[in-house]
Amino acid sequence: MKKVVVIGGGTGNFTLLSGLKKYNIDLSAIVSMADDGGSTGILRDELGVLPPGDVRQCLVALSDSSRLMRSLMNYRFENGGLVGHSFGNLLLSALEKVTGSFEKAVEEAGRILSIRGKVIPVTTNQTRLKMILSSGKVLEGEGEIYVSSELDKGYKSIYLEPFPKANDRAIDEIMNADLIVLGPGGLYTSLIPILLVEGIAKALRDTSAKKVFVINLMNKRGQTTYFKASDYVKEIKRFVGKEMFDFILANSGKPSPELIELYAKEGSMVENDLKDSRVIMTNLLDNQKTEYNVNDTLAKHRAFIRHDSQKLASELMRIVDSS
Amino acid sequence: MKKVVVIGGGTGNFTLLSGLKKYNIDLSAIVSMADDGGSTGILRDELGVLPPGDVRQCLVALSDSSRLMRSLMNYRFENGGLVGHSFGNLLLSALEKVTGSFEKAVEEAGRILSIRGKVIPVTTNQTRLKMILSSGKVLEGEGEIYVSSELDKGYKSIYLEPFPKANDRAIDEIMNADLIVLGPGGLYTSLIPILLVEGIAKALRDTSAKKVFVINLMNKRGQTTYFKASDYVKEIKRFVGKEMFDFILANSGKPSPELIELYAKEGSMVENDLKDSRVIMTNLLDNQKTEYNVNDTLAKHRAFIRHDSQKLASELMRIVDSS
Repeated sequence: MKKVVVIGGGTGNFTLLSGLKKYNIDLSAIVSMADDGGSTGILRDELGVLPPGDVRQCLVALSDSSRLMRSLMNYRFENGGLVGHSFGNLLLSALEKVTGSFEKAVEEAGRILSIRGKVIPVTTNQTRLKMILSSGKVLEGEGEIYVSSELDKGYKSIYLEPFPKANDRAIDEIMNADLIVLGPGGLYTSLIPILLVEGIAKALRDTSAKKVFVINLMNKRGQTTYFKASDYVKEIKRFVGKEMFDFILANSGKPSPELIELYAKEGSMVENDLKDSRVIMTNLLDNQKTEYNVNDTLAKHRAFIRHDSQKLASELMRIVDSS
Repeated sequence: MKKVVVIGGGTGNFTLLSGLKKYNIDLSAIVSMADDGGSTGILRDELGVLPPGDVRQCLVALSDSSRLMRSLMNYRFENGGLVGHSFGNLLLSALEKVTGSFEKAVEEAGRILSIRGKVIPVTTNQTRLKMILSSGKVLEGEGEIYVSSELDKGYKSIYLEPFPKANDRAIDEIMNADLIVLGPGGLYTSLIPILLVEGIAKALRDTSAKKVFVINLMNKRGQTTYFKASDYVKEIKRFVGKEMFDFILANSGKPSPELIELYAKEGSMVENDLKDSRVIMTNLLDNQKTEYNVNDTLAKHRAFIRHDSQKLASELMRIVDSS
């Protein structure tokens, strides 16, 4: 069975895992442990647990259980002392307390949710993401970086403190993979925080796995405002220390001008300026989410520029099967 | 398959259900919905949910899942905004929000915990327990009644407000039972709050099921301070409106004087003063919990006067099999 390792975060990563879990492969998701915003941040501060948020999302993506169970995991309490906490975060934190280990908690939660594949925290050390901007301003924590709109003015450094050691299992997965998929995901808040963990970049350089980069659909205003595909590839190279990709998967689909306009405040679409033989350009858009009736306000708000999980997975499976 | 319905609450009820679930019977637990103390009270107030606490305990008692899952359900958060909440309570409350129904929440939680049998809320109406003491003092809520030490000076009335209608399923269970087991459980905080629900007393009068009363091992100081078995039976008769028991199961085992002394602040053992043919007197004590080395301080604190789940269940099964 082919071994596929996914490194990413956020909605795009969720979509990717949801698509890949339907194939007969040995699938694992390596997850950032730098999240410290919202419910996750409160749980870290108040309970001293490791950050459950990104892990929860991967578990739900890989879950084979009922829609109800998946809704339950993402349910957020709306009032009182519990306000803002997602139930899945509380599950992981309580399991960490009961088992005494975050990894055992993830394993047990995976069992409860009948997941296909594995979810592996990139490190089990407590760590925080920090970023020093060119202006000298210091951003403390992934939460602060996530909401910043000054990243595109340049930064001096981005690092994890304390400097965490990679989880041995994450290294094993990378070294034994047939295919490694990097992205989609927030460049500074999901992808780079994984690459910054001690041992990960070296493993990515050393592994004989084929490596594919899934370029994000959208730039994030104030962060990767004018990035083209080549800028993403360059940034990743800085942190891996090598031009590592065998394939670059980029979207050629075009959403309607109205939808692009709707998104304009958040950011523009990523343009592909890479033309070499590694590049696979194809329509990866979720059509159901990109087309809407302009007169239907509800549909309008539900329309998003998103990857299509089936298209994404089948392109990646084509690479796996040929490798 | 014989149908056994258990009506009770607290540790004794937990022990009883843990014992009975090992037999090949159709088992259901009818649960009080008057709890409003601690974590349950906060969830009722802040989220507007039905009280999860007693239901959680029954689910855990009937659960066939791993020890870890059962520990998880009873795990209480120790810090921050979550402090005092048991994870199982949060599970039930989140499921109630996601499914839109407390009964569906209980059903789904039962599935997650692989329970044997059914857990049935006696009502699905929001209600509070109130008690007016002879002194004129009004106790608002089960939580306040639970900690009161003035109940033994007499009370004028105890009632649920608003007056809740019984869950149809609870009535069905009672009407179709072969055996109904009342107790063990706090007289004013677990047993009577179930009998007070509209329709329950009538069903208990009308059903052709055999009925057994499991007398509590201990009186609760300030509540049932000098009660003997006959006093418990009399109180139940007041609320059912009929002397309904076919059997009365009372303990004849004697814990060590040291253990009784240890318990003295909480209350004395219940003496059986009933001598009629309905009474089954036998040693129902959990010996592992009643015997301890007086020099071992840790064991001392772990020693309790508790029912033995196997003894209790096998006595009840003898009644079921002969009925």
